[in-house]
Order: sequence, then structure tokens, then C-alpha cells
Amino acid sequence: MHPELVDELAIEAKTKIIFYILDGVGGLPMEQGGATELEAASTPNLDALAKKSICGMLDPVSPGITPGSGPGHFALFGYDPVKNIIGRGILEAAGIDFPLKGADVAARGNFATIDKNGVVTDRRAGRPSDEKNRELVEKIRAVLTPQEGVQFFLETVKEHRVVLVLRGEGLSEAIPDTDPQALGVPPLEPRPLKEEAQKTSRLVKSVIEKAKGVLAQEPKANFLLLRGFAQHRRFKSFRQRYKLKSLAIAAYPMYRGLARLVGMDINPPVETLDEEISALEEKYADYDFFFLHYKKTDSTGEDGNFAAKVEAISAADAALPRILALKPDVLVITADHSTPSFLKLHSWHPVPVLLYSKMCRADGVEAFSERACISGGLGRMSTINLMPLALANAARLAKYGA
Amino acid sequence: MHPELVDELAIEAKTKIIFYILDGVGGLPMEQGGATELEAASTPNLDALAKKSICGMLDPVSPGITPGSGPGHFALFGYDPVKNIIGRGILEAAGIDFPLKGADVAARGNFATIDKNGVVTDRRAGRPSDEKNRELVEKIRAVLTPQEGVQFFLETVKEHRVVLVLRGEGLSEAIPDTDPQALGVPPLEPRPLKEEAQKTSRLVKSVIEKAKGVLAQEPKANFLLLRGFAQHRRFKSFRQRYKLKSLAIAAYPMYRGLARLVGMDINPPVETLDEEISALEEKYADYDFFFLHYKKTDSTGEDGNFAAKVEAISAADAALPRILALKPDVLVITADHSTPSFLKLHSWHPVPVLLYSKMCRADGVEAFSERACISGGLGRMSTINLMPLALANAARLAKYGA
Repeated sequence: MHPELVDELAIEAKTKIIFYILDGVGGLPMEQGGATELEAASTPNLDALAKKSICGMLDPVSPGITPGSGPGHFALFGYDPVKNIIGRGILEAAGIDFPLKGADVAARGNFATIDKNGVVTDRRAGRPSDEKNRELVEKIRAVLTPQEGVQFFLETVKEHRVVLVLRGEGLSEAIPDTDPQALGVPPLEPRPLKEEAQKTSRLVKSVIEKAKGVLAQEPKANFLLLRGFAQHRRFKSFRQRYKLKSLAIAAYPMYRGLARLVGMDINPPVETLDEEISALEEKYADYDFFFLHYKKTDSTGEDGNFAAKVEAISAADAALPRILALKPDVLVITADHSTPSFLKLHSWHPVPVLLYSKMCRADGVEAFSERACISGGLGRMSTINLMPLALANAARLAKYGA
Repeated sequence: MHPELVDELAIEAKTKIIFYILDGVGGLPMEQGGATELEAASTPNLDALAKKSICGMLDPVSPGITPGSGPGHFALFGYDPVKNIIGRGILEAAGIDFPLKGADVAARGNFATIDKNGVVTDRRAGRPSDEKNRELVEKIRAVLTPQEGVQFFLETVKEHRVVLVLRGEGLSEAIPDTDPQALGVPPLEPRPLKEEAQKTSRLVKSVIEKAKGVLAQEPKANFLLLRGFAQHRRFKSFRQRYKLKSLAIAAYPMYRGLARLVGMDINPPVETLDEEISALEEKYADYDFFFLHYKKTDSTGEDGNFAAKVEAISAADAALPRILALKPDVLVITADHSTPSFLKLHSWHPVPVLLYSKMCRADGVEAFSERACISGGLGRMSTINLMPLALANAARLAKYGA
């Protein structure tokens, strides 16, 4: 895969591409010889489409690597997931739909307990309620006035977790975690890891001091630990790279955040798959590319609930006719990674993929499942190849060389 | 693929390798569920050979990328088609079989019409006949005497198209197109894009002036536009890289030109596949490697003539016994890219490949077609891996490491 080459060759066209992402859809049997979630589910629409499509297996990063949502989606979007690293703080901010800008620096935070000797006794401050979290955040916000031209944003995530964002000139991500990730030791100092991080170091130190002051009387949440400092950067956008006007439709904020990082327009939050597809229908005329994200196949897998994942897959299948009715020039159905119920975790297993277009060269695969797609015409390849293939099938890539 | 490794490991042997290239042979069905050209053709010999061979699918550049003939063939020859870019001018010169040398600089030219205000009114000068083209070229040649130690070659391509080649010391390709690719604007100046292009700039300017003088009285073809300046370079040859004495047999000049770029000997032009194979038989004792190029599978595809492409494939199949009678140690049959009649264009679809040798490890594929080869033992891989595989099967690659 040659990302620069693809960017050079991308051309405008009137065609439309839909990526229907069934998060974590790849699975495993619960016992040896059994069926995977995809094989157990009723998927007449997916299977019928597979027969007309080219299928295969995708490795999100490379064989054996279990991707997080960030690398998994970046690979789907055609961005090398190893070269284009999304820092933890940035991912956390994206995950609460925080509109990052310019060179913002973001960090994950957690309320913690320190004792009178200044050592950490509980890294999660007894897991406060979300409401308590919001109350503490409000109090700290009140004292976080701009300093040295830099604005501060402190945002609730949930329980003990928050996000801190710094916005202004001359910031740097070269700040170590202050969370010692251990008990009985004091928090670490946000010292500058590089010369250019002096200012950020001063500002973070000041935030921690101010928070400490505000939280002094709290019995548990009396300290703010920070980690995963990361600077926002503008990745080349879908428009710049692929000449695509693109829309992300996702019920969960994390996926909207990831799409925002590559310059997609973001559909306002909706909750159900039905609502997502209604949004797709409404906006269909206005965009070239649609990232349609379905979460339930992943969350049921992470719960280890095989039956619920099977049901989620059947629901994704039942929604397919509405998508097909739009007659997209290219429809891709796949996942960002596998989430086998058997493991209750993301996994390294490759994910089945189906690409439909009038010129896809169907391959004889008869069903959309892990086992069936092994024999597909795409073979087994890295997910990063998917965007170029989708563009080619949409007549959106010029010939390379004469 | 590790090109340098292959070069290091290549050893001499008495074995012979034939690459039988069916240009553009990969195809598509004309309607959903139909047969591709290869599936529709009668190919008893190819199918019988596929049963004894290892098969697979090759991506000439990478998934989704549609290659021109240059990158497609360079990949077949084992040269990275992205790192080894062949400039437009060089390809055009190769395409008319012009014997490029050393650091020649070549450009594509076209006769154009400019009006009395000096703006371009027809970039193709009303498409003159080939005969008219030759007549104009003769006239300009008469005034293109050597200058600053540099020789000039002006060659007819066809209609309005010519090739200009500069040969001498101190030349550079850092000259912009003078063709503005638009009407109503004057031609652009061949100014030097780099310091070292000063001399080339002066010389090209002088060529344009001289041509203008000669063409002054022409009603239509009164100007010469130039574009795609590119410098010839000696790629490492087949002999240097692979220790192979190689011969190119191709009816079309472009393919002879591409083979010449990698140092193959060139069989004199012949017209039909039969004549090509006769040449192969005659020269068989004298070479280790044969690049046998069959054009008709591509030209019929580009015409969108499914039936003619099917017939061209059957003809290629019928010729196979004569090739097999030579008992080559390794016979590879594949293409530089797909040219589906359905698209009338080169396409990004991978091409089927068959590699026969006594030690190829046959894989159970029963036919030579896009669908059948998906299940082949080579899987889906980049074309650049083909040369090392052919060398290995010819016992021409030493072991790597102890």
C-alpha cells in the first residue's frame, strides 16, 4: 500500500461510497467446533450480498496485533495505523466528542486519594459517581482561569475519569504521566521532557495545584492525576486525500471523534441503528462517503454475551435492505477489529470484509462469515488497502503511470 | 519483497525461464453472475497446465491501483514500480522503439496551432496525417544541427505526436511542460527548474525557435509543444541483478522499449503470436530468460470487445503447446494488469498467475481463470514477488543465511 500514491491518483466523481462498520463483528466459537457469532446469526441479507461481492479477510494492523478503536478505524480510513499514532489524551477527548482544535494538548485525568504524607492511596478515589464527578469538575473549572494566553477545559468522562485540554500558543505534549500507576508513592511531577515543554509544564503544575486547593476538603477525591499527554494534529483530511465529502454517522462519541480527526463532517448524535440509517437517508444527497458505525456488535462481544452479539448481528443484517435501497456505488461491510464473545475483548483475529460494486469481480463466496470469507477474492490483506479498493471501485482513482 | 536480497542471492544455472505475458488478460463478467473473458474462452491447454502449476492472484502495484504498462511490466520484471518511475518522455521514446542511451533526455511533442497573437488555438493542429507528420519532422530535422555538443533526434509517433530526444553531456530533465494544456493562452517557456537545467533550457528553447521558423508557413501545424521531459537512466540490468541473459520478444514497440530499459536483448520486430513463438524457438538456445509479450488480450479488452478478447485468449491457449514443447524449466503465465472488456480500460483488479516448474508444488487449482486462481497456492500477492519465485523455481537463488 502506497498512501501517497493513492492521494496523488484520487479524482472527483459522482459516485457514492458507504462503509457500514459492524464494530468488533469478527468472533470465535464458544467451544471447539462450534459456530462463531456471525455463523450463528441469521444473516440472509448479508449472505445474499456476499454472493454478489468480493470478500476476504482483513488484518487491521498486522497479523497478531490487537488494535484499539483508534488504530482499527484509522486503518479503515486508509491512514497507516502505525505511522499515524493517536495519543491517549487525544483519543479520550475524541471519546467524549470534545471538539479539539489546532495544537490543543489533551490528557486523561483521574480523581485520586492521597494521604497526609502525600502518597497515593487510591488511584480512583473510590470510584465517585458521575454526578459527583461533574460536581468536582465544576468546582475546579471555576478556578481554571486562562494563564499565559492558554485556556483550560476540564471535562467529565465518568466515575473518577476526566479529560483536561489546554488550548493556546507554544504548548507541547512532552510531559510525563503524573499518575505513578502504583500505591504508596507520591504523584510524579509534570516536568518538561523537552526544552519546548517548559511552558506546558508550568501550566499543568498550576492546574494540579489549583485542583489540589479546590479538592483539599474532599474525603476521597482530593487529588487529580494526569496521564497520556498528547497534542492534537490535523491529519490530512478525507477531502484533501481522497477528494471525498464525507459524513460520519455514529451513535457513540468515540467514533465521531475519530472521524473528526480525519476531517469528516459529523452527523448529530442519534441513538439507534434505525436512527443512524434515517440520517444516512436524509443526508445521502449531500455527501460522497458515509462512515456508518454500528456499536452493538462490539459491546455485546465485550460483555461476553454470545447470544446478544448474535442478535446484534441479525439486527445489522435486517437493516441492510434500507442501505441497499440507496443504491450506493460501493458498499463495504466490515469491522475495525474482532471482539469474540469468548474472549470478552478486542482480539487480533482478522475480520471478514465484503465489498460490493458493479465491477467488484464476485468470487463465489456464499456467506458473510469468518470461514466463508477466507476463500474470497480479496484474500487476506491489511485493512489499509480497503480505502484504495473502495475508491477504485467508485471510479475515483486515476491510472498510475502510462 | 526484498529486491536487494534477491540480487545478492542470484546465481548462475543452466535453467531457462519463460514469462508468457498475456497483456491485460484479467477481466470481468459483462453482467452480474456472468463469466469473465478467461472463463468464457476455450483454454484446454492453460487449464491442463494450471493443474500441474502453482496459481494465484497478483496485484501489479497494490490493491486498488490501476497500473499503466510501464509500472505493470516493471513489477513483472521485479523492479519496484513505485520506486522506479519511468518518465513520460522516456516511455514515449520506448513506445516507438527509439534506442535510448546514457543520460538522454526525452520529451513528448505535439504539433499545435498558434494564432497571430501567439496563443494556442489547437493543441493537436487539426490532427495531421501520419504522412504529414513525417514530412514536418523531416523539415525540422534538417535544421536541428548539434549545438553545445548535444545531438537532437525528432521522431514521428503518429498524427500530431512526436518525440524529441536530446543526447549529450550536462543535460537535465528539470524542464517544465511548454504545452499549456489549454487554449487561448500562449505556450509556456522551457525555463530551467533547477540550476543544472540551464543548458537544457537553452537548447530546448532553440529547438522550439527553429521548429517555429520551419513551420511558419504551415496553416495548422505551426508550433511544437513539448511535455513530460524525462531523463533516461540505466536501471540495473537483468544480467546484473539476476545473472540472466534475457531476450524480449514483443510485436509492439512499447514493450520492447520497456524491456530495453532493464537491459534485455530485443528480438527484431515480428507481427503475429506465431512469429513471436518461432522467434522463441529460434533463439531458445541462446538465452536464459524470455519475455514473450502477447498484446491482443489487452487491445481487445480496451476496445470493449468481449468476444474478440475471448478469441484472443483462445489463440493464446492454442499457442501454448509450442511453448511447452521447449520444456522450459519455469514457465510463468500472467499479465501486467487486467483490462476488462466491461470497462474498456486497464483496471485495478488482480491478475491470475500460473507458475509451472517441476518443483512448483501444485495446489489443486483446475483452471486458469480469475475465480479459480483465487484458491491457488500463491494466494494474493504483489507482482514484484514473481521474479524471485521464478528464479527460485529455476534453481537460480542461493540460500539466504546459514
